[in-house]
Amino acid sequence: MAVDKLWVIKIGGNIIDHPEGLRRFLDRFASLRGRKVLVHGGGKIATRMAADLGIEATLVAGRRITDEPMLRVVTMVYAGLTNKQVVAGLQARKCNALGLSGADGNSIKAVKRPVDKIDYGFVGDILPASVDEEAITTWMESGFVPVFSAITHDGGGQLLNTNADTIASALAVALSSRYDTSLVYCFEKRGVLQNVHDEASVIPEIKAADFEGLQAAGIVADGMVPKLYNAFDAIAKGVREVCIGHADDLHLLHERRFGTRMVR
Amino acid sequence: MAVDKLWVIKIGGNIIDHPEGLRRFLDRFASLRGRKVLVHGGGKIATRMAADLGIEATLVAGRRITDEPMLRVVTMVYAGLTNKQVVAGLQARKCNALGLSGADGNSIKAVKRPVDKIDYGFVGDILPASVDEEAITTWMESGFVPVFSAITHDGGGQLLNTNADTIASALAVALSSRYDTSLVYCFEKRGVLQNVHDEASVIPEIKAADFEGLQAAGIVADGMVPKLYNAFDAIAKGVREVCIGHADDLHLLHERRFGTRMVR
Repeated sequence: MAVDKLWVIKIGGNIIDHPEGLRRFLDRFASLRGRKVLVHGGGKIATRMAADLGIEATLVAGRRITDEPMLRVVTMVYAGLTNKQVVAGLQARKCNALGLSGADGNSIKAVKRPVDKIDYGFVGDILPASVDEEAITTWMESGFVPVFSAITHDGGGQLLNTNADTIASALAVALSSRYDTSLVYCFEKRGVLQNVHDEASVIPEIKAADFEGLQAAGIVADGMVPKLYNAFDAIAKGVREVCIGHADDLHLLHERRFGTRMVR
Repeated sequence: MAVDKLWVIKIGGNIIDHPEGLRRFLDRFASLRGRKVLVHGGGKIATRMAADLGIEATLVAGRRITDEPMLRVVTMVYAGLTNKQVVAGLQARKCNALGLSGADGNSIKAVKRPVDKIDYGFVGDILPASVDEEAITTWMESGFVPVFSAITHDGGGQLLNTNADTIASALAVALSSRYDTSLVYCFEKRGVLQNVHDEASVIPEIKAADFEGLQAAGIVADGMVPKLYNAFDAIAKGVREVCIGHADDLHLLHERRFGTRMVR
């Protein structure tokens, strides 16, 4: 039996924050063939909204804390403003989007991060086994395109601010039991670069076995290390491939010419 | 073939605004047997949020205008904060809520109200034929309880602020082709009162033929007239009954002891 293709696409704040870039992305996402799920962050709108409301970002040891007022802001902005603007924009492109938080359909549960040295406040760590791939499959097989905001819940009535990269990864892993799943991170670079100063030096493919060597050579460094670590973790858990590249290149996914592909 | 029972319940700002009243309502709504849909307004939170953001309510001829900044606020508050709090609260009560705007699944389309004497801004008048009862039925028959916020879209990417009473009525009418549908409005009174000063004087049932007489006698007056007019309009279009009463009495619906029932 052929297994259907699924794309789980994550976009970050850098796209959300720029109307023209968002429009280009929505054009490309709407045109993507096969089943698809979108996960979006909230970008700087939440930060600006908090500032406009006179809510100061609480930082502890340099880390941003989601206190109660900030949770209200991110819930409003991520699950309300951004999610519905993206959904309406996709509907205008004949893509039958269904906007979601993890509370909707009880699709993704999380636990409030335990207080150790830092109390992060209302931040949720996803319970991977809680991702309800049956609910999400039902939506997709009924013709809807799930669009997840970075808000989950604890099942006891508490909403939680949750990292969008992690949501995308948890969704891809859970859905890989039913679909031939590719996880795609859109960011502001063309991919993993051989030479960080040369946008044309994109490495087309990285195998798990190459990861250590690239780290040792200093080619994969800084912020890319956790990204690639998480990518290979998702692949080890059943995702076929993880692709990292620029949102404007999304139409190249079908031709396998999008950014850098991480494979087993 | 037996037709399944469906409740379309609308709650207003007076419930949303009071945590204790909202908790009581969610308890009762979660316990309601049969298929059900919830429609909620946003209450005063949007007004307060706009004030906190320094956005002044624009009034033209005494009517509130939804300009672009106000549309952003109601989208955030209705479709984000309020909707997700209600959904998470229902999930905590084992009611598998799915939060929606009319843009989600293209379930309800509206047109921006034409500018006549007043430009209401981004206010949407529902296109009744656009209500996608197939999408909504699919969600319900898959076990989800739709929870609609008072935001719709025009299909061209524009979100629109839409009256929650009208959304509830349009949903009930559209779904009455598939379900034995009761439309229930929860407000701050026990029902339509024979004597406005006596909360115990609830009229249990009003037939369409009685409506004119009650108006002539001055028993139904002021704000109740359009409510009842709309109720009988929904009944004429296929809804079995329209009930008006207090949210705290919701558990009496099954015994037909909830507020006032309008019937054919």
